[in-house]
Amino acid sequence: MNEFDLIRQYFRRDIDDVAVRVGVGDDAAVLQVPDGYELVVTMDTLVSGVHFAATAAPADIGWKALAVNLSDLAAMGAEPRWITLGLTLPQADSNWLAGFSQGFFDLAEQFSVGLVGGDLTRGPLTITVQAHGLVPAATAITRSGAQCGDLLAVSGYLGDAGYALTGSGAADNDADYFRQRLHRPHPPVAAGMSVRGRVNAAIDISDGLLADSDHLLAASRLGAVIHTDHIPISPQLAAACDRQTALQLALTAGDDYELCLALAAAAEDDVRTALRAVNRELYVLGCLHEGSGVQLEPAVDGLSQSGYAHF
Amino acid sequence: MNEFDLIRQYFRRDIDDVAVRVGVGDDAAVLQVPDGYELVVTMDTLVSGVHFAATAAPADIGWKALAVNLSDLAAMGAEPRWITLGLTLPQADSNWLAGFSQGFFDLAEQFSVGLVGGDLTRGPLTITVQAHGLVPAATAITRSGAQCGDLLAVSGYLGDAGYALTGSGAADNDADYFRQRLHRPHPPVAAGMSVRGRVNAAIDISDGLLADSDHLLAASRLGAVIHTDHIPISPQLAAACDRQTALQLALTAGDDYELCLALAAAAEDDVRTALRAVNRELYVLGCLHEGSGVQLEPAVDGLSQSGYAHF
Repeated sequence: MNEFDLIRQYFRRDIDDVAVRVGVGDDAAVLQVPDGYELVVTMDTLVSGVHFAATAAPADIGWKALAVNLSDLAAMGAEPRWITLGLTLPQADSNWLAGFSQGFFDLAEQFSVGLVGGDLTRGPLTITVQAHGLVPAATAITRSGAQCGDLLAVSGYLGDAGYALTGSGAADNDADYFRQRLHRPHPPVAAGMSVRGRVNAAIDISDGLLADSDHLLAASRLGAVIHTDHIPISPQLAAACDRQTALQLALTAGDDYELCLALAAAAEDDVRTALRAVNRELYVLGCLHEGSGVQLEPAVDGLSQSGYAHF
Repeated sequence: MNEFDLIRQYFRRDIDDVAVRVGVGDDAAVLQVPDGYELVVTMDTLVSGVHFAATAAPADIGWKALAVNLSDLAAMGAEPRWITLGLTLPQADSNWLAGFSQGFFDLAEQFSVGLVGGDLTRGPLTITVQAHGLVPAATAITRSGAQCGDLLAVSGYLGDAGYALTGSGAADNDADYFRQRLHRPHPPVAAGMSVRGRVNAAIDISDGLLADSDHLLAASRLGAVIHTDHIPISPQLAAACDRQTALQLALTAGDDYELCLALAAAAEDDVRTALRAVNRELYVLGCLHEGSGVQLEPAVDGLSQSGYAHF
């Protein structure tokens, strides 16, 4: 099969969206952004052996390649609409493509996002996804909008994916929980949209709470105290390892698919209600202040950067 | 240097564009598409050893990674506006990054397109670019709009890049011409915009005239006769090889950065004038008819598919 047959067989799905004026199969896709909205675009690349094991299930890779991008849109408060996919493969392996496209579209359909274009090439296994979302004009949540005195908070449990990645054991009942948290994460899309207009800044936790909260603080030119006792740890993680290990994972392992938020203290109840309506929770960790960087109270011994490779 | 330092040093340029509400450095970019316009997006991946030699000059790779995408926008008649870049590198090599970003921005600045986001990861050398352009609503030129009886035409010389890729010699005076045609192609952006509303269908010639005109014909459910004597060959290519070789390259080598167009006979003079205004030329090759596929008259012996690898 040539490139065009493969695209037709695995990646061409009917898109029920009048805003897609031209989809897969032309030189480019043509998309209608409604008046009064702004376009939000993010791109992430996953490399075999770096961001996932070469032996990982293709369906998990497909799911996750999309999930990381939807998570970035979520952190802007955007509604996901369209995706493009750049897929580089060593050879045209039908089994692999069937699995990959299954996982990819399983998640895409949950959010009604259509694959509108991309590129299929031969080479070392590398996947680049660009996700396109919409926000009402001037409502995107940036990293830089945090205010001095804001609360710093997260939208859910941290450290589970990091624990699963270590390959350590878990109780039989919990093995599937950790597998799902690592391989089939649910990007906080509804959470991001629900806190839009209610929070001052957001970032998704992909590199670990410590690194990502620091990015938010740097962009907002502020510092923060994080009360480590307030970091939310799942019952499953608490049962699987000691507290210090759990905190280390939550702070540095990343891949958590939760939002880190800065919000006015007066907005706390409102944001909590909004998150609960979409099955997320607000965990307040600390407070923003003049200065820079994150101060952990109490400190956590043995912190080390881990998780996925970046430059 | 970490990922963020590298992005800051090599890829963060000031963008003088009020439509870029959020650029590089947040979870996603936020872009304003003006009322009455549609967004045109295209993505292309270049893999080391497949789409370019591992030893190619980094500046040439940077230029070309953008050029292939701008050429796709050109084939839709779109005005390029914004770019995202997914760059995967074996290691953080400052010399390579300095060269690559120089070539990339040299071309970007010619078209005033801003780099608004992307991703830098570690892995086998792979480059994915997505280009974003704008067209007035419902004016994008597709592959599928050709009409029976239309003229089939191209916007310039074909086969030069293919000849350069063979590594065959050229007259001293012409060596630089071939080098430029292969490594520093000029995407026909102004040509695409100038024929918008004047032609019925367009495609860019990336896989060779034969394959690409066939894509246009298949999308429009038509066939065509191409008079091979009318295929435009540069004086440099005509001097460097025999006529049959030149025709083979023009028909199958690709990488030509010219447009293949279908237009009503009554529009010929108007389209020629529009193309000349942007230093391109209209070469009419034949005519579209009921049926399918391309018929060459007279036939060209020894045709074989060559050029860059695709699935």
